[in-house]
Amino acid sequence: MKQELHLPAGFRFGGTACGIKPSGKSDLGMIVSDKECVAAGVYTQNVVRAASIDWNRQITPTQNLRAIVVNSGNANACTGQQGANDNFLMAAKTATHLGVAPEQVAVLSTGVIGQVLPIDQVATGIGQLIENIGQDSDHFSDAANAILTTDVGPKTASSTFEHDGQKTSIAGMAKGAGMIGPRMATMLSVVVTDMPLTPTIAQELIHAAAELSFNRISVEGHMSTNDALILLTSGRNVVPNDEHLTVFAKHLNNLCLTLAKLIPADGEGATHLVEIAVDGAKSDIDADKIARCVASSNLVKTAIAGADPNWGRIVSAVGYATADIAPCELGLRLNGFTLFESGQPANFDAQLVSRSIRDSHLTQIELKVGGGLGVAKHWTSDLTVDYVRFNSEYTT
Amino acid sequence: MKQELHLPAGFRFGGTACGIKPSGKSDLGMIVSDKECVAAGVYTQNVVRAASIDWNRQITPTQNLRAIVVNSGNANACTGQQGANDNFLMAAKTATHLGVAPEQVAVLSTGVIGQVLPIDQVATGIGQLIENIGQDSDHFSDAANAILTTDVGPKTASSTFEHDGQKTSIAGMAKGAGMIGPRMATMLSVVVTDMPLTPTIAQELIHAAAELSFNRISVEGHMSTNDALILLTSGRNVVPNDEHLTVFAKHLNNLCLTLAKLIPADGEGATHLVEIAVDGAKSDIDADKIARCVASSNLVKTAIAGADPNWGRIVSAVGYATADIAPCELGLRLNGFTLFESGQPANFDAQLVSRSIRDSHLTQIELKVGGGLGVAKHWTSDLTVDYVRFNSEYTT
Repeated sequence: MKQELHLPAGFRFGGTACGIKPSGKSDLGMIVSDKECVAAGVYTQNVVRAASIDWNRQITPTQNLRAIVVNSGNANACTGQQGANDNFLMAAKTATHLGVAPEQVAVLSTGVIGQVLPIDQVATGIGQLIENIGQDSDHFSDAANAILTTDVGPKTASSTFEHDGQKTSIAGMAKGAGMIGPRMATMLSVVVTDMPLTPTIAQELIHAAAELSFNRISVEGHMSTNDALILLTSGRNVVPNDEHLTVFAKHLNNLCLTLAKLIPADGEGATHLVEIAVDGAKSDIDADKIARCVASSNLVKTAIAGADPNWGRIVSAVGYATADIAPCELGLRLNGFTLFESGQPANFDAQLVSRSIRDSHLTQIELKVGGGLGVAKHWTSDLTVDYVRFNSEYTT
Repeated sequence: MKQELHLPAGFRFGGTACGIKPSGKSDLGMIVSDKECVAAGVYTQNVVRAASIDWNRQITPTQNLRAIVVNSGNANACTGQQGANDNFLMAAKTATHLGVAPEQVAVLSTGVIGQVLPIDQVATGIGQLIENIGQDSDHFSDAANAILTTDVGPKTASSTFEHDGQKTSIAGMAKGAGMIGPRMATMLSVVVTDMPLTPTIAQELIHAAAELSFNRISVEGHMSTNDALILLTSGRNVVPNDEHLTVFAKHLNNLCLTLAKLIPADGEGATHLVEIAVDGAKSDIDADKIARCVASSNLVKTAIAGADPNWGRIVSAVGYATADIAPCELGLRLNGFTLFESGQPANFDAQLVSRSIRDSHLTQIELKVGGGLGVAKHWTSDLTVDYVRFNSEYTT
């Protein structure tokens, strides 16, 4: 699990257990920028949302952020005015320690919905944590650990590149294993970099990256109240040239996609990461509709869990995606095997295909839906007995 | 299971095992009208659909139908030209025995997708079955049994009423336990009556009844390739008066709703029928969106399976239904207990609510989403370990 991370200069990180989680596991994290930094975020589109989301929407994009404080184990969502007060206190407490304004501190929360935060413990934790932050990979990992809930382990990624002799680094962390649905930036991710960006450009870039990564994954498709993806850069007050920006965008998109795919790969109870690739649709929008529809079918997801090449479930899900397709041109390949072609069943060795599903963590579904140019990819988890068992026992 | 059924005159029924199902269970059913009858149907909106659906769409509504032949154990969907030929043969074989045209016979198929029908066995079965049809409740039950696949038992309902001294009877059968999703008339139902109706009126009535019943249920939300609901009436060549029609429509809607609710109540692996009632939305359309969104959440469905009053999952599903709601007005009652009110958590005894879920087959979720007049109801199954276990082992 130990990774060599390419960390940009200018940030310090930390994580600790302040007592939110009964298990005593790490539940408070912090990312502090040495100077004022540029910050841009994308947030859940759920109308029912956490206090932290409203707060962050107000203060980003900005070029004056100094810190993000994160708690796990409690979403502080659906908690009314008390929740908004507690959220402000988290920002204010952090700000006081740094000698800045509360509006310079973003807040992220994740965990159970509808419970009031143990705010005294959180406030004490903030004071202790801020004394123990550092800029190395170990401290970054501590922060990445502190944001987890039902995840099996931390999710981090980083990359670095040189442009015109200038070195740029990007590092990100993410969490999420359940309540993962599309149309948003999924459940808590923070990316830090030293790339020179204005708030406006940062906002455009993180939005585009989310569209291609976190917005294309799902576990069970339930949209959370707390999803957030925030980009921080210490490269402030410098205007990058277009070429540099293009290279950076590519790296940012790749990094977000790497982080995003870690989420369904670690989906609650999941035994397979399922990749759905759609080709030949009339438009990218149609292709996306089809990929999402297949990804959200419990019948497809249980078939993969059972290593069952039951292709009728996949093909029938294509049919109700409300995309404009020609059934007679429909084709399906699973892990490279052709199961359905030009609207007709193909001959295939079911045992061989079944074994290919059973033997690999990744299942690849390729759908050809016509002669158009529209393409899309989506990633999801399979649906196992363990997912249901786990989610039937969550709070009580 | 034995029911006293109010059967309209003019129809004969039957069911037998012709060898499609390896288990030897009943898999061929028939409904024959003594004379030409009015028939109207609503069918799956899935673009990928069975040969039977295309055939029935062509021949209904009509006033000249003579029979419906139904097979279970094989959906005859995604079977290309061979499937269309086999479907025509089923109609033609039945028609020959009755001395009518193939276009006077509707066909319904249900079962596994993508396998070719053993058409010789089906043809032999049709010849034998047609000699053994009858008009009593036992023969009706034989037909209702022959259309089942993963259902625990047959699903039938009937009613009768008098209007101006004229007695009218309605009787229906349905099947379905998996691949049940909204926006269609769900998986095979036939309703017979002696109500005087023209094809146009019959079509309007059955469409309206489906909207309020079969289109408001789901098991896992996967839209099938074969769904069909067909209304037959022997009351042909008589124009009913408006009042008679109004009373009939009410009885038809009730009957369809009774049949429809039997489906999620018997959903694959289900231990609860979940009723979601939405009130106070800006429009019925918004209310419907919210009810469907809650009904399709795996997290809500696993919580009910575990008798877990985890209301955050329900409230957060309301939030991403893309309906226009005010979060501060949101309220939730579960089995009569208030869990959330005016956007704030309510005090409640979690053990008591949990027990109320555990002790009843029906779970009632009532959502107040604002001060509007929009209302809607939806019914679904809970999601259990047995659902996943069953669907991971379906074909292989």
